Amino acid sequence: MIESTSAATSHRATEILSNVRELCDPLLREAISSLPEPLRRMGGYHLGWWDADGTATPQPVGKALRPALTVCSAVACGAGPPTALAAAAAVELVHNFTLLHDDIMDADQVRRGRPAVWTVWGIPDAMLLGDALHALAVRVLVDGLPAPTATAAVTRLETTVIEMCHGQHADCRFRSGGHVDVEEYARMAMGKTGALMGCACALGALCAQSEPPTVAAMDTFGRELGMAFQFVDDLIGIWGDPKVTGKPASDLARHTMSLPVVSALGSGTEAAAELATMFGRDPGTAAMDTARAAALVESAGGRQCAQQLAERRVRAAIAALADPAAAADLMVLAGMVSRRNH
Amino acid sequence: MIESTSAATSHRATEILSNVRELCDPLLREAISSLPEPLRRMGGYHLGWWDADGTATPQPVGKALRPALTVCSAVACGAGPPTALAAAAAVELVHNFTLLHDDIMDADQVRRGRPAVWTVWGIPDAMLLGDALHALAVRVLVDGLPAPTATAAVTRLETTVIEMCHGQHADCRFRSGGHVDVEEYARMAMGKTGALMGCACALGALCAQSEPPTVAAMDTFGRELGMAFQFVDDLIGIWGDPKVTGKPASDLARHTMSLPVVSALGSGTEAAAELATMFGRDPGTAAMDTARAAALVESAGGRQCAQQLAERRVRAAIAALADPAAAADLMVLAGMVSRRNH
Repeated sequence: MIESTSAATSHRATEILSNVRELCDPLLREAISSLPEPLRRMGGYHLGWWDADGTATPQPVGKALRPALTVCSAVACGAGPPTALAAAAAVELVHNFTLLHDDIMDADQVRRGRPAVWTVWGIPDAMLLGDALHALAVRVLVDGLPAPTATAAVTRLETTVIEMCHGQHADCRFRSGGHVDVEEYARMAMGKTGALMGCACALGALCAQSEPPTVAAMDTFGRELGMAFQFVDDLIGIWGDPKVTGKPASDLARHTMSLPVVSALGSGTEAAAELATMFGRDPGTAAMDTARAAALVESAGGRQCAQQLAERRVRAAIAALADPAAAADLMVLAGMVSRRNH
Repeated sequence: MIESTSAATSHRATEILSNVRELCDPLLREAISSLPEPLRRMGGYHLGWWDADGTATPQPVGKALRPALTVCSAVACGAGPPTALAAAAAVELVHNFTLLHDDIMDADQVRRGRPAVWTVWGIPDAMLLGDALHALAVRVLVDGLPAPTATAAVTRLETTVIEMCHGQHADCRFRSGGHVDVEEYARMAMGKTGALMGCACALGALCAQSEPPTVAAMDTFGRELGMAFQFVDDLIGIWGDPKVTGKPASDLARHTMSLPVVSALGSGTEAAAELATMFGRDPGTAAMDTARAAALVESAGGRQCAQQLAERRVRAAIAALADPAAAADLMVLAGMVSRRNH
């Protein structure tokens, strides 16, 4: 799964992401500027626009994949990119609101290679910024769409937020121990990652005034792609190059119950038994031998399982598209998700 | 300020609150029921419907003042109560979302005489429930109103949430020490308490299809009343009877920077100097002599100041009403807020 994609497709994906970022940026900056201080300053820091002291950063952080899905979905449904910019910005704001809250819950100190907001300003302010970005997302969506589309879009976005809360609850439960099987893991990933990518695509279709079956098909495309994204993320978390990913440590060092691990632990092999013992130790007192653990996950079939499930989800995503020819950019993004290495 | 109101007015206020609660209850229960487990169970616990194990509670908790403001504002603007129920439920859900998050930030272990959600299910689940209630509030509002009203209502509600985040940020800052004057305190209270009560009333007017000047007047009424509510709350926090308030300890024991304290500390009196010394001690190591502190706040004029400012705010609220005769129930609620003892 983690292999170099054809240079042309990779170049086109970068181009799409960069174009959408440029289109959405003014709307996002206007939204963040409307926040009272210090929420404005914290929000711009989290979005990678400036340092904690307000100095502008040289380049943007984050992939902006979700806004790209919204804009490309609208285009695939026959609308122009400007129609979908408010929805794209709203999805990006919801994504960032959940990142802020998840980082607190998971005690993750690093976000996109920089100190997480809660480590800089403290937990209360990071919670409040998350709440404010959630509110801002809804306001941007409502302000940027005609009333009937706005109400349908808001209902869909907030239903997605509730599904994400449920997914994050399951993820927290998995982190605190107990048995997890591949099916439970997939359900959690659907809530945590699939739901918002599905919503991103569905909103693009809504903005294009598509009929309900098309909106549903775009939702399925995004959800399946989101699952693939998560499974590839899990593979990168173990076998990715820290220099490329920007993530400081292997998921294994933190005892993260990712798909390869869950699959390996459920394999009934000898490797699974040894892995279970390693995962059973207190991460605070015994450092994980991550090279050994990665080898065990691989020999227990966890790597192959995650690769196969990711590929299956990408195929299911593409199968959901009624007219793949009209969705060329979505196909490029799907290819990027399945072959990315960071 | 804390004196018994006339029995008839007090009876009428209780009646209004109980009627509105009964009208809103089905909508709130339907909304909470739509949440996936365990968010549904936690939500119903927080709203006082059942215990942590799911056993139904004998009587409701919480005053439901904000939904009453929404419904009575709609009635004052010439509409029937059913028109405003979705907005009333949405305001109550936002109020509860902020309580859940504030209790985490403030480390408040007791909410309405029962263990706060975060002490029962942990901080991550309490954060997620808050996020889910925020999403649910918006969904209820959009689902229950015609599209053009819904979009105006959602924009107003989310603008209010951002103002509340800013108010809570200031409150957290005050808690962590540093000088606060009466003006700064009033600004914080406007964000934390006034904004949502103003929004509650404005949404009632919006649901009644009122013109912008009427909506603005109702917003002012609610904001001024909300400030009075907060100032009376501060008085109760020091001089209220714990048996009546259900709050375990005086605000003074927790070094809370409430209006009487802020006013007393800024009085330039000898009592202020002694009080400042008492507030300067670490609450973890030296227990506050709350009787002595209360006497100092009073002799430094803090009690009188809070009483006067609360009365002024109630008068300003009533002055904002274009037609007090049409707003009889709002006048009753204003009387209750200014004379309550819990």
